[in-house]
Amino acid sequence: MKNLDKLFYPGSIAVIGASEANAKWGSLIITNIIDGGFKGPIYPVSSTHDTVYGLKAYKSILAIPGPVDLVFVATPANTVMDILRECTTKEIQDVVVISSGFSETGSMGVLLEKQIIEFAANHSMNIVGPNTMGMSNLHWNLHGTGAYLRPNPGGISIIAQSGNIGSQIMIWAEMEKIGISKFVGSGNEAVLKVEDYLEYFNSDENTSVILMYLEGVDDGRKFLDIAKNTCFNKPVIALKAGRTEGGGRAAQSHTGAMAGSFQIFESGMKQAGITVAMNPTELLELAAVFDCFPLPRGNRIGIITLGGGWGVITTDECEERGLCLPPLPDNIKKIFDAKLPPFWSRANPVDLVGHFDYTLFHEAIEAMISSDEYDALIVLGLLGVVKFGIQFSNAAYRMGFLSEEQFRLYEGMSREVDTKILDMVLTMMNKYDKPIYPVSFASYPEDETVYIKSGSKYKVIVYKAPELAVLCLSKQYQYSKYLQTHRPR
Amino acid sequence: MKNLDKLFYPGSIAVIGASEANAKWGSLIITNIIDGGFKGPIYPVSSTHDTVYGLKAYKSILAIPGPVDLVFVATPANTVMDILRECTTKEIQDVVVISSGFSETGSMGVLLEKQIIEFAANHSMNIVGPNTMGMSNLHWNLHGTGAYLRPNPGGISIIAQSGNIGSQIMIWAEMEKIGISKFVGSGNEAVLKVEDYLEYFNSDENTSVILMYLEGVDDGRKFLDIAKNTCFNKPVIALKAGRTEGGGRAAQSHTGAMAGSFQIFESGMKQAGITVAMNPTELLELAAVFDCFPLPRGNRIGIITLGGGWGVITTDECEERGLCLPPLPDNIKKIFDAKLPPFWSRANPVDLVGHFDYTLFHEAIEAMISSDEYDALIVLGLLGVVKFGIQFSNAAYRMGFLSEEQFRLYEGMSREVDTKILDMVLTMMNKYDKPIYPVSFASYPEDETVYIKSGSKYKVIVYKAPELAVLCLSKQYQYSKYLQTHRPR
Repeated sequence: MKNLDKLFYPGSIAVIGASEANAKWGSLIITNIIDGGFKGPIYPVSSTHDTVYGLKAYKSILAIPGPVDLVFVATPANTVMDILRECTTKEIQDVVVISSGFSETGSMGVLLEKQIIEFAANHSMNIVGPNTMGMSNLHWNLHGTGAYLRPNPGGISIIAQSGNIGSQIMIWAEMEKIGISKFVGSGNEAVLKVEDYLEYFNSDENTSVILMYLEGVDDGRKFLDIAKNTCFNKPVIALKAGRTEGGGRAAQSHTGAMAGSFQIFESGMKQAGITVAMNPTELLELAAVFDCFPLPRGNRIGIITLGGGWGVITTDECEERGLCLPPLPDNIKKIFDAKLPPFWSRANPVDLVGHFDYTLFHEAIEAMISSDEYDALIVLGLLGVVKFGIQFSNAAYRMGFLSEEQFRLYEGMSREVDTKILDMVLTMMNKYDKPIYPVSFASYPEDETVYIKSGSKYKVIVYKAPELAVLCLSKQYQYSKYLQTHRPR
Repeated sequence: MKNLDKLFYPGSIAVIGASEANAKWGSLIITNIIDGGFKGPIYPVSSTHDTVYGLKAYKSILAIPGPVDLVFVATPANTVMDILRECTTKEIQDVVVISSGFSETGSMGVLLEKQIIEFAANHSMNIVGPNTMGMSNLHWNLHGTGAYLRPNPGGISIIAQSGNIGSQIMIWAEMEKIGISKFVGSGNEAVLKVEDYLEYFNSDENTSVILMYLEGVDDGRKFLDIAKNTCFNKPVIALKAGRTEGGGRAAQSHTGAMAGSFQIFESGMKQAGITVAMNPTELLELAAVFDCFPLPRGNRIGIITLGGGWGVITTDECEERGLCLPPLPDNIKKIFDAKLPPFWSRANPVDLVGHFDYTLFHEAIEAMISSDEYDALIVLGLLGVVKFGIQFSNAAYRMGFLSEEQFRLYEGMSREVDTKILDMVLTMMNKYDKPIYPVSFASYPEDETVYIKSGSKYKVIVYKAPELAVLCLSKQYQYSKYLQTHRPR
């Protein structure tokens, strides 16, 4: 395994080609690193400037007084080899080559890239790229990317064979409050390849889930071996692009990836235990669910719903995805008989027929999740419904028939109900070690989609729509089953 | 066809069971109607109050002095028949029965509902429900629902056989700025059935697209005949729940719908020209695309992308959904040869290799959309990328290396670029009558997802991810093909 500690947890950083705010890569990288609050020394290297953002700039790496752990290179392709030589002189092994102009541009670039490959092999260098948009470690305040990406620190580490797809996923994570550990755009993979990052993230304590966007893998066998080993330890979610003939051609034109047969590679991924996503949004959502919820031990699902329609939709989605809905055991029927009107469904999904009552929710969820009949629970519409109440009281307040004090009191109490439900869901998951997937009645942009409470082993994702909750649950079940049947004991 | 003009465009409204802010249905409905700004007289009817929100309340409908076009009933089931009799005395034909306690609750309720059905038939009444969450007309400031739903007025009319699914779709529409025309929760469909609303919306000038959530249809033949006729005139998008055995059982328990064979009904829907959605989010997104973009005449797609990875993903999605990507004609290659570095893809997808240049975007989009080789265009990552520039300058400003004035100037200019791109996309769509689907690099919650400009025939939806854009495009193509082959000339 390649030791990438200094790459992802450097004590000090140099940026070659650093400058101030002019939209060039050398400027973007150093602006991002400083703004991101990196804790160690940052050394700009510039042939034209004496300072960059008030930091003393050096004419070369060799002129830097202290030790340097990690170097970002953002100068033209033909300068890179000299810089690598200087790095070895200064005993630097970890370099991120942002610069483009290598194998992606034609035969001259291919030659330049070969030089890098040989040099790195002879000097045991860890090189990211070239032609990468950079890397970041959110647990280390390290933001070494050409795009401005600020998700919360969390458990998901990302390997992207496309800078723009990777960036977009990071932005979605930021918007949805999904926590990210590390990010690397693997670029041309001249030296460090997707499997090297995978192997390193497997051993990384701050990584709980690994997310990959792939176009092509040079050594399929090696990659799948490492993936298999990793999947026994933590979930790996991958989107492999180039599934179709046209997609394969586009991938070759983009990263030079020889797509090979997608079907063969896909079945290899599945045999290795990788969770396969079909598109970028799925990729992130699947990574998030593994980071937040416990694994279901089986595929027996209980559904509690505030309204009938959701129950129907969710049942369809469950059955189509290989999940099953066992009927309600008698003891649970009895509980609801005492609480619901006589015409209640008496079946799974349990339809609460619009009864909004926190005590009922609590009792319903605990009855179902504690039952040996169910491995997981989906709860539909309990969250978010208080919003309507708030808006109606707000209307009454605007009309002058409720005082501001009364309205604020009501608003506060209502919001508390949603938090109480989230806390209860978290408590139940921790207590019974089974996942509970809530789908919100009304999700507003300002809502937290990931609910985190300190001291809790798990987190809660609040889904906007039932189909996404079911997809995530079904993939968690498949991984759980894979581990049960494949993991060496 | 049933004339539902007074139902959807009433001049005056009475609410039976009206009261002030106490979370009961009669209170929710009148609060919503007043707060929604309904323009005509509103008459509360209450046995216990003299005024409701300052409006004079009447003891019965018969005591109301002026004419009443539409009545909402929110009193217990056993009061409904008397109220209907009073309605006929006052020559009121249009009634929304919010009240539950009918066929959904057992044999007594079935009897009560039968009485309503007979009475309505004898007196030519249009009755929504019973057991409905209400209806609304956003072009008429009419918000007669028990949930607080405020999307913008627009072209999509919604028929929902589930109040909670319908409400959720309305909330999503509000959040995504998707315009809605009318909404009706059809409830138990004692009198007015899904096909009656469908037929009416077909003739409604303010409806451009019809969206339906279905669990079961009593008269499948009649429904499909009306649907077929409607689809020749405007797009109909439907989600039929109860696809699976379990889903069918849940539907029966919910609305009493006999699901029948989903496969047979689905093929009937497709033969009628209905666009079939697989889940609630798809349902809304598909309705929106038909409301905003022109129909593509064929399935030949051009892709322009700022980065390679998106091009690969999008190609996969296109080919899997029956769309094709014709190669670039020579004249278009020449245009890009002059603009892009020598190693550019020279293929469709056109990879702009990160060149952010408005003039290039303009030229690229016009070259592709004006070409006879392409029926539609997908443009990836051009929108939203300016956000990074803003955040980097903001960082430089926070560090004290850019004045506030400089930063604000830069921010304003950058934001203008996105608006300029949207305007250009709109201009091109109007000029060439072909759809252009933009996918944003970075979408933030505050972003408008639907871009509307007065005077433009079309609107622009900005997609968050390529897979959704391709899904929507492919369904538009299927409908376009259906019209070309089935519509009588």
